[in-house]
Amino acid sequence: MTSVVGAAAGKTTLTQAMRDTAAEVETALDDLLPVPDGGEARLGEAMRYATLGGGKRLRAFLAMEAASLFKVDRRCAARVGAAIEMLHAYSLVHDDLPAMDDDDLRRGKPSTHKAFDEATAILAGDALQARAFEVLAEHDTHSNPEARCELVASLALAAGLRGMCGGQMIDILAEGQDLSAEQIIRLQALKTGRLIQYSAEAGAILGRAAPLQRHMLAAYGRDIGAAFQIADDLLDAEGTAEETGKATGKDAAAGKATLVGILGIERARAQAEMLASQAARHLDSFGERGEHLRQLAAYVVARRT
Amino acid sequence: MTSVVGAAAGKTTLTQAMRDTAAEVETALDDLLPVPDGGEARLGEAMRYATLGGGKRLRAFLAMEAASLFKVDRRCAARVGAAIEMLHAYSLVHDDLPAMDDDDLRRGKPSTHKAFDEATAILAGDALQARAFEVLAEHDTHSNPEARCELVASLALAAGLRGMCGGQMIDILAEGQDLSAEQIIRLQALKTGRLIQYSAEAGAILGRAAPLQRHMLAAYGRDIGAAFQIADDLLDAEGTAEETGKATGKDAAAGKATLVGILGIERARAQAEMLASQAARHLDSFGERGEHLRQLAAYVVARRT
Repeated sequence: MTSVVGAAAGKTTLTQAMRDTAAEVETALDDLLPVPDGGEARLGEAMRYATLGGGKRLRAFLAMEAASLFKVDRRCAARVGAAIEMLHAYSLVHDDLPAMDDDDLRRGKPSTHKAFDEATAILAGDALQARAFEVLAEHDTHSNPEARCELVASLALAAGLRGMCGGQMIDILAEGQDLSAEQIIRLQALKTGRLIQYSAEAGAILGRAAPLQRHMLAAYGRDIGAAFQIADDLLDAEGTAEETGKATGKDAAAGKATLVGILGIERARAQAEMLASQAARHLDSFGERGEHLRQLAAYVVARRT
Repeated sequence: MTSVVGAAAGKTTLTQAMRDTAAEVETALDDLLPVPDGGEARLGEAMRYATLGGGKRLRAFLAMEAASLFKVDRRCAARVGAAIEMLHAYSLVHDDLPAMDDDDLRRGKPSTHKAFDEATAILAGDALQARAFEVLAEHDTHSNPEARCELVASLALAAGLRGMCGGQMIDILAEGQDLSAEQIIRLQALKTGRLIQYSAEAGAILGRAAPLQRHMLAAYGRDIGAAFQIADDLLDAEGTAEETGKATGKDAAAGKATLVGILGIERARAQAEMLASQAARHLDSFGERGEHLRQLAAYVVARRT
C-alpha cells in the first residue's frame, strides 16, 4: 500500500487534497442551504447546524476524487458531494435521537436535538434528505438528465430499506444479541457501507463511466466502506473522547456486536488492512490518476479520528 | 359548482373513480413495497403498515386524474401516485411521534410508533421518503429522464424546508400563539398545500404539458389544497372521532391556530367553498375531461371524513 508520506514531491498530498475538497464542499453546502425568512428559519438553522462545519467529508471526497478520474466539472462534483454529506448529516441527526442511539455529543458539540429540540431535529433530518435529492435532480448537477436520475435512484437505494435505514433497523434489533461475524458484516454493509460505496460510484455516474469502470469504483467503495467501519469500531474500542470528538467505549457498553468484539483488536485490524489493500487494487486500471483514492484506502485504516 | 350526484348518466361518478383509483394505487404500493428477508424485514413491515390500506388517496387521485388529461400511461401515473402517497405516509408517521403531535391513533388504528416503536417509526418514515424518490427516478415512471428529474426536484421542494417540513416547523412554533389569518394561510400552504399542489402538477409533468396548462393545474392544486385544509379544520372542530377515524377537537385543545378559530365556522366554510369554486374555474380550458377534478373541488369541501 502506498504511504501518504510517500506521495511524490510536487504533487498534492492526500491530506492537502482532503482539506481542499472539504473546503469546497463546505462552500457548496453553505450555498445550497440558505436560511429562508419566516417561521421556518429555525428549521433552516438546524439543517445548517447539523451539516456545516464538521468532519473530514470522506464521502464527498470519494465522490469528487472518483469524478476527477473522468475530468468531471468540479462544481458539478461538489454539488453531488454536498448532497451526499446532507444525506449523511440527516442520518446522524436521526441516529442521535433519544429513541435511537440517544447521543448528546456529535463532532464535539451538542447533537442537533440537544442544540434545538427533538421535533426540530426530526424535521431537520427530514428536510435534509429532501434537499439532497433536490440538489441531485437539478440541472446544475449534470447536463444529462439520465445521469441525474441515476444519481437520485442509486442514492435512494443506498439510503433506504435496502441500505442505511435497513442497516440501522438491524443494528437496533441486534442490541444485546450475539451476532456472527457474517451477520455483523452484512449489518455494517447496509448501515454505513452502501452510502460509502455510492459515494465512489457517484463519481462514475457523473463521469458517464463505462460499466467496468463503474463496477471497479463500486467494488473499491464497498471494500473501503467495510474497512472504514472496522476502523471506526477500533477507534471506539481504543480511542478517547478527546481524539474522536464523540463518546467512546459506547459499543461495548450498549452491548453492540462489532467485528472487533468477535475477532479481537489485532485480527480486526488485520482484516481492515486486507480490505484496504483490496480496495486499492480495484483502482489499478486508473493508473496514476487513482493515486489519491489508493492512498485514501490506507488512510482510512490508519486514521486516529 | 357541479354536484357529484349530477354527473351525467353513463359516466363514471367521482366517488366510483376515486374508489377505482385508490384500488390501483393500493396495488402499486403493494408492488413497490416488498418486504425483504433479513433483520430489516421489520422495517419493511412498518413501511407497509404506515402506507397500505388507508385513506381516500386524494393526492394520488389528483396526480392520476391530472395525468389522464394528457393521456399518460396509467401504470406510470400510478407509480407517481404511489410515490406521493409514500411521501404523505412518511409525514404522518413522523407527525404522530411523541416529540411532534403525539398522536396514538391514525386512520382508526394505532399510529406506527404505537404498533411498532419510536425508533422503527422514525426509520420507516425515513425509508419511505427515500423510496418515494427512488420510484420517481426509475425508468418505469417515465421514458423521458427530464420528466423524472422534474418530478423528483419538484416533490423535494414541496416536501422540504420550503414546503411540508417548513410548514410543520411553523406549526410547532405557533402552538399557543395568536396567528393572523394571513400567517395561518401561509403555514397551511406550506404544511399541506404544497404537496397537494405538487400532486396536481405532477400530472402535468408526466404529460409534458405546455407551461400554461401546468400553471393552471398548479393553481387548481393550490386552491384545492387551501380548501382541503379549511375543510379538515372544520371536521376537527365539528366532527366526531368515529367519523374521521382520528381524535377530534385536538386543535383547540392544543391551542393550535386555525382559520376556523379566527373566522368562525360559517365564514371558514364560505371561504373553503369560494376556494373550491376558484379551483374548478382553473380547469375551464380542459373542457369535459376536467370534470372529475372539478367535481373533486366540491367534494373536498363537502366531505365528512
